[in-house]
Parts: sequence; structure tokens; C-alpha cells
Amino acid sequence: MKIKVIKGGVCAPKGFKANGIHCGIRKNKIKKDFALIVSEVRASAAGVYTSNLVKGAPVVVTKRNLENGYAQAIICNSGNANTCNADGIAVAEDMCALVKSVSGIDATDVIVASTGVIGQKLDITPMREGINELWNGLGDNSDNAAEAIMTTDTVKKSISVEFVIDGKKCRMGAIAKGVGMVCPNMATNLIFLTSDVAITPEMLQKALSADVKSSFNMISVDGDQSTNDTCCIMANGLAGNEVIAAAGRQFNAFKKALNFCTVYLSKMIAKDGEGATKLIECNVYGAKCLRSARVIAKTVIKSSLVKAAMFGSDANWGRVLCAIGYAGEAVDVDAIDVDFLSRAGEIAVCRGGKGVDFSEETAKKVLSEDEITININLNIGNGNATAWGCDLTYDYVKINGDYRT
Amino acid sequence: MKIKVIKGGVCAPKGFKANGIHCGIRKNKIKKDFALIVSEVRASAAGVYTSNLVKGAPVVVTKRNLENGYAQAIICNSGNANTCNADGIAVAEDMCALVKSVSGIDATDVIVASTGVIGQKLDITPMREGINELWNGLGDNSDNAAEAIMTTDTVKKSISVEFVIDGKKCRMGAIAKGVGMVCPNMATNLIFLTSDVAITPEMLQKALSADVKSSFNMISVDGDQSTNDTCCIMANGLAGNEVIAAAGRQFNAFKKALNFCTVYLSKMIAKDGEGATKLIECNVYGAKCLRSARVIAKTVIKSSLVKAAMFGSDANWGRVLCAIGYAGEAVDVDAIDVDFLSRAGEIAVCRGGKGVDFSEETAKKVLSEDEITININLNIGNGNATAWGCDLTYDYVKINGDYRT
Repeated sequence: MKIKVIKGGVCAPKGFKANGIHCGIRKNKIKKDFALIVSEVRASAAGVYTSNLVKGAPVVVTKRNLENGYAQAIICNSGNANTCNADGIAVAEDMCALVKSVSGIDATDVIVASTGVIGQKLDITPMREGINELWNGLGDNSDNAAEAIMTTDTVKKSISVEFVIDGKKCRMGAIAKGVGMVCPNMATNLIFLTSDVAITPEMLQKALSADVKSSFNMISVDGDQSTNDTCCIMANGLAGNEVIAAAGRQFNAFKKALNFCTVYLSKMIAKDGEGATKLIECNVYGAKCLRSARVIAKTVIKSSLVKAAMFGSDANWGRVLCAIGYAGEAVDVDAIDVDFLSRAGEIAVCRGGKGVDFSEETAKKVLSEDEITININLNIGNGNATAWGCDLTYDYVKINGDYRT
Repeated sequence: MKIKVIKGGVCAPKGFKANGIHCGIRKNKIKKDFALIVSEVRASAAGVYTSNLVKGAPVVVTKRNLENGYAQAIICNSGNANTCNADGIAVAEDMCALVKSVSGIDATDVIVASTGVIGQKLDITPMREGINELWNGLGDNSDNAAEAIMTTDTVKKSISVEFVIDGKKCRMGAIAKGVGMVCPNMATNLIFLTSDVAITPEMLQKALSADVKSSFNMISVDGDQSTNDTCCIMANGLAGNEVIAAAGRQFNAFKKALNFCTVYLSKMIAKDGEGATKLIECNVYGAKCLRSARVIAKTVIKSSLVKAAMFGSDANWGRVLCAIGYAGEAVDVDAIDVDFLSRAGEIAVCRGGKGVDFSEETAKKVLSEDEITININLNIGNGNATAWGCDLTYDYVKINGDYRT
């Protein structure tokens, strides 16, 4: 199956419009803070959410609204997470009601999300005053929505693709924000996907739940997991393919398109990690099993010392071995091979758990690129996995040392 | 029981001598890199070690040497961890043999430790050439030994105390280095304790194993666990008390003195965490059980976001709640209370899982001190625990971004 990257973001699929405006939640008037995505028709919908026990009120409301498997709109604000507030649920419900007030869409068919600081009351007033402007501006404005959900993100994160199922052209689009599924409370990960594929809510949820295990759940920026992480997809069926209601070739094509979009965004999110200067990809080969490979890849990506070494372009492979050693998974230390790669070349640094001679000059060149790959072969089984992260920099400390005040 | 702080470090107990010199493992000639601690007589000995699967060669040799429960000397170098080297075990054994060559002490009665970079061959030559100077300088030189085991430590870490068991004056001394039991590979945690109490190897090991759970295992600087962490104690019996061979009042007195020393050093280690400007103490009260309290306290202390907020003196309590929420332990979010304290005052920031109004000015004052306490009451049980950590700073990134090269 061919996947072609096209323009349009969440508005690329048939029947989707979007917009984003500054309504006044943020004091900075240049920064958009209020986003809306709407489908012409009611769509199959699915979601995955943070596993943090402290959950944002919008997560609770969205979960409830998606219980029946359908939705027609997504509303989202940045600047305030609406979490740990006494009236949080009521405010999240009010946000859904605002969508109804302008569109007639049932409030329970609305996906609601918020991102920003925790524990400060979210005032509905700016949104109430801005909802007409937001609604009236709906159109082919995916970029406005992508911008409105950003917090410390430095780039807009968007992708859209075209693919064919049973001779019918189908499309999928997505916008995202944040710095990891396992991520800081202020840099909550939000991913909104749209598609015009016809698929049942059950199969849509199945595809999404399986996909995040190898995409968004394999990113880490700092090991902190947000209270508001949300990844939702709406598929409205306007592509006209036969409804996908079971596993098979069509479902596989859909999953492939989905994974293309989610992995693309995962890498974008990791690369834009708070303060990051480099994308780090860690491939683990030959682990005992898939699960074990994932745990080890993620542990390496999360290590503050590995991250700091990457920042310094320092081929300190001992830190990689150290992280493998405390991952809690069975490994044979004397069988581990490690290589560093980038577009500038590659170097073998460890064979059979022991250091091998390498040119420090070449190492520095390889590690000075802005996309680094760490290849680990455990040589004990068939489990392979990839995780994405970023380096640890002065700017991470700066951004997080004084965010709230 | 009264515990009196006295001078002397590891040489405070009867029959112990120490020394530390620069032998040439490090290029910096001002920095001592070779340490020796010797007891006049063979001593009961016990140890606890890293649980990292990648273990330094000295850890393997020390474990083996302590299997019989006795030791008489500790030899340690800094500047090289002797880990992931093909000839590592042989070099660690050679270090023990060097002690024998000057002292006659059986090589299997020697505790050996190394700290520094991983995966570079450790040359025995400088130590072979320096062992006579090290041995000849043995005396009341605990500070020299404490200095010789330091790596990125900015202060020497030492404590010694006097206490009474059954009318006999007893002493305990200790030196330590590193930034946490869960810590970076270059900042391996090493703790060497000496005592003149008479106690069997079995009871000594029992006391040490229980103690570290509430002391060194409750520190975190960056969540990375070293390959070389080692905590060893020798107790030579010269205080003349009746040998402690079972639980009871005497054993409790010994445990109390031990805990005094280990908690003191734990706080020192956390406060001197790489790049740290503040000691953070997290007390968890009212957890489901002790284990759960420990996990939650440790999770909060380890959160990069909490640590960065403390660096910025930012009362961002949402990050504390967020960390509690992903600790993986049962909590009732709506019952959680959080307070920040320091010698400048205290502020309540969260009651029943919701924010309470507080003066930002007072908060800034409280959090600008160099020792901060975070009190969390989960209000669901009787489990209490304390963990120690530090803030996350620019200097942490600097120190670890370019350590090896």
C-alpha cells in the first residue's frame, strides 16, 4: 500500500473543518489558545488517555462522551489544564455545551481537552465570548488549530496522508502538541486525528489502542506523565469505502496509514522536547521478547545521563549499558553490542559487553548531528522495539525552573 | 540512648587507621585518587551492593570476599570504575593483593571498590607504585581517605559518633561519596563504615540490609543507578562490649547509631547531588503501607519537573500531585494534602486534592532556602516514609553533558 503525504492537516480528510483563535485564556495576545475541529457528519471515534491517577477534568468528560463510540467535534484550550479544580468537570461540560450552542451538535458528541498549568481555576468567560468567532472562522484552517493547542512547543506538529482502500481514495490528518506521552504536566501530549475512512467504532478503538503501544507510548522526554494526555481520532466515513468492521486487508491498510501518522508525530514530539536540540532514536534488537525490548529501549531513552551525554556529543556508551542493566529485564551483559549512528556515519562502541576502540574524532562527528540513533543488540532473542527521546539541556531546566510564575 | 557526634571519621572507632593519596590514576595531581582503611584486627563485615545487572568488577570481588562475614581492610580508587573491562576481575584481585603485599592481610579479607568512568581499562601500575606511600601514611587520616574517593563531589562526606552499649563506650565512623544510591555511573555511591562494636557478621549484615531501605535507598539524584554502588561496614569489637549475637536492646542501640550515621550521610549525599543547590526532603504520611509510602516519596523526589520547580523556587504543587498520580500506588486523589516547608516558614498549597489560596510572596520566601521539605498526607493509612533528593539545575546538565571527554 502506498501512503502519500498531502497538505491539509486535520482538514485533509473529506468533511472536516478546523479553526484556532486567541480568546483570552492566555495573557499573551499573539498566542492562540482556543481550537475547534468539526466533522460535517457524526463520526466513529476512539480515544486513549493518561494512566495517571490524577486526571484532568476534560479527560473524565471525554472518556464518558466517547463511551458510545461516536463524536462530531473536538474543542480544546491551552493555557490552563483544568485539573485539580473543584469545578473542573462542570467547566469541561460547559465547553461541550458551547459547541452545541453554535453548532447544534449534541454536547455528548464533543471531545474536550485542556492543556496548561494544573490547579488554577479555568474561567469559561473568554471561551464563551470567543466561541462565535471560533465557529465563524471554521474552514481549511488546520494550522490555526495546531497553533492554538501549543504550549512550550516550538513548532506546529501536523501530518496528513492519502491512501487507497478498495479503490477508494482515503485520507487521514492529525495535529499534535507536547513533548511526550510520558511527559511534563504543562507539556501534556494531545493528538487529534481525523479520517474520512468508514470504520466501526470498535475497530477504530482497536486500531488506536494497538498503535499507541509502538508510537506515542514509546516517546519520553523526562519521565513525567501528564494528567491530561489524550489521543483521539474521528473517522467520518465520507471516503465511501465499505465500512471496515473486522480484521483483514482493509483494516491492515488503515492501521498502516495510522502508524505512518503516529510515528511521524512521535518523532516530531520527541525532537521538540522541552529544551531539546537532538532527536534520539533507540533501537533494541534481539531482546527476550517484544515487551522486554520496549522496556529496555524506553529505559535508555529516559536516562538523564544518556540524555546529557547526547547533549554533549559524548560517546559515553557506559551510560547506555548502565541503563540496560537497571531496566529490570533479563539480559546477558556479556552479549550486548552497542553502536551510535547518524547521517554523519556510524561507530561501534561496545561488543560483548566490553568497550572496543573507536576514533573519538569520528564519534564526536557522528554525535554532533541533530538526529542520533543508538542501536543495541542484546543477542538473546527476537524482540525488537524502537523508542524516541531527546537530549537533556540547559534550556529544559530553564523552561521548567520557572514555568508557573 | 544518647548519640554524640565526635571527630575522627572512619578513624574514630578504636583500632582503625586510614589514608588517601594521589597515585596517578587521575591526571589532576592535586586530586587524591587512592584510599585505604585498615583495622588492627580482623572485623565482622557486611555489605550491600548495586542491583544493576551491569556490575563493576570490584563489586563482584568484594561480594565474594565478604561471603565469610569478615574483612580487615578497604582499598578504593577514584577516576576509573573498573567496569565493562575484559580484565576487570583480575585488576580488582590485584588491588587486594597489593594490600596483602604491604600488610600481610589475607587478600580475601579486603573490600575493594572503584569509582569513575566505565569501560576504560584500569591500569594497576600507579597503584602498585603508590601502595607503599599509602600504607606508610596510615594514621588518623580519615579526611584523606574521604577526599580520595570523591569524584564530582564538592564536599567531603564524613560523620562519626559515640554511644554506649551496656556501659561500654562504642564508636562508629563513616565516609561516603556520590550523589545517590540511585545515581549516575560516574557518581557511584560508596559508603564505608567502621565501628568498634562487637557484633557477629550475621547481625551486622541484618542491621545494614534493613537500614539502607530507609537511608541510602531513599535518596535519588537523577534516577540512574550506578554499576558500582557499594556500602560496607567493618566492626572490630575493640569497644569490648559483649558480642551482639541476637536481636534485643543492644542490637537496637547499634541500629540506632547506624541509622544516625546513614541518614546524616544520605542527606549530605542528596544535598551534594551533581549541580544541586538545594536539599529536598519529601515526607509521605498516611499511605496504605510503608512500602507504598516509600515508592511515592521516591517518585516525587525523582520527578524532573518537581526538581526543576524547586530550582526555580516555584510552588508548582500540581507537579507533586502529578508525580503521586503516576507512582503506581493506590491513592485517593481527593484526600491528598500538600505543604511546603523550610526554615523560612511553611505554606499549605493543596487540601483534598484541590488547590488552596496562598501568598506567592511567602511561597517564594519558603522555597528560596537551601533545604526544602515537601509534606504529603495521603490520609488513607498508616504508612510513613521519607526520601531525599535535590533540585535539577543547569550545572547538572553541564557536569554530565561532557564528563568523559
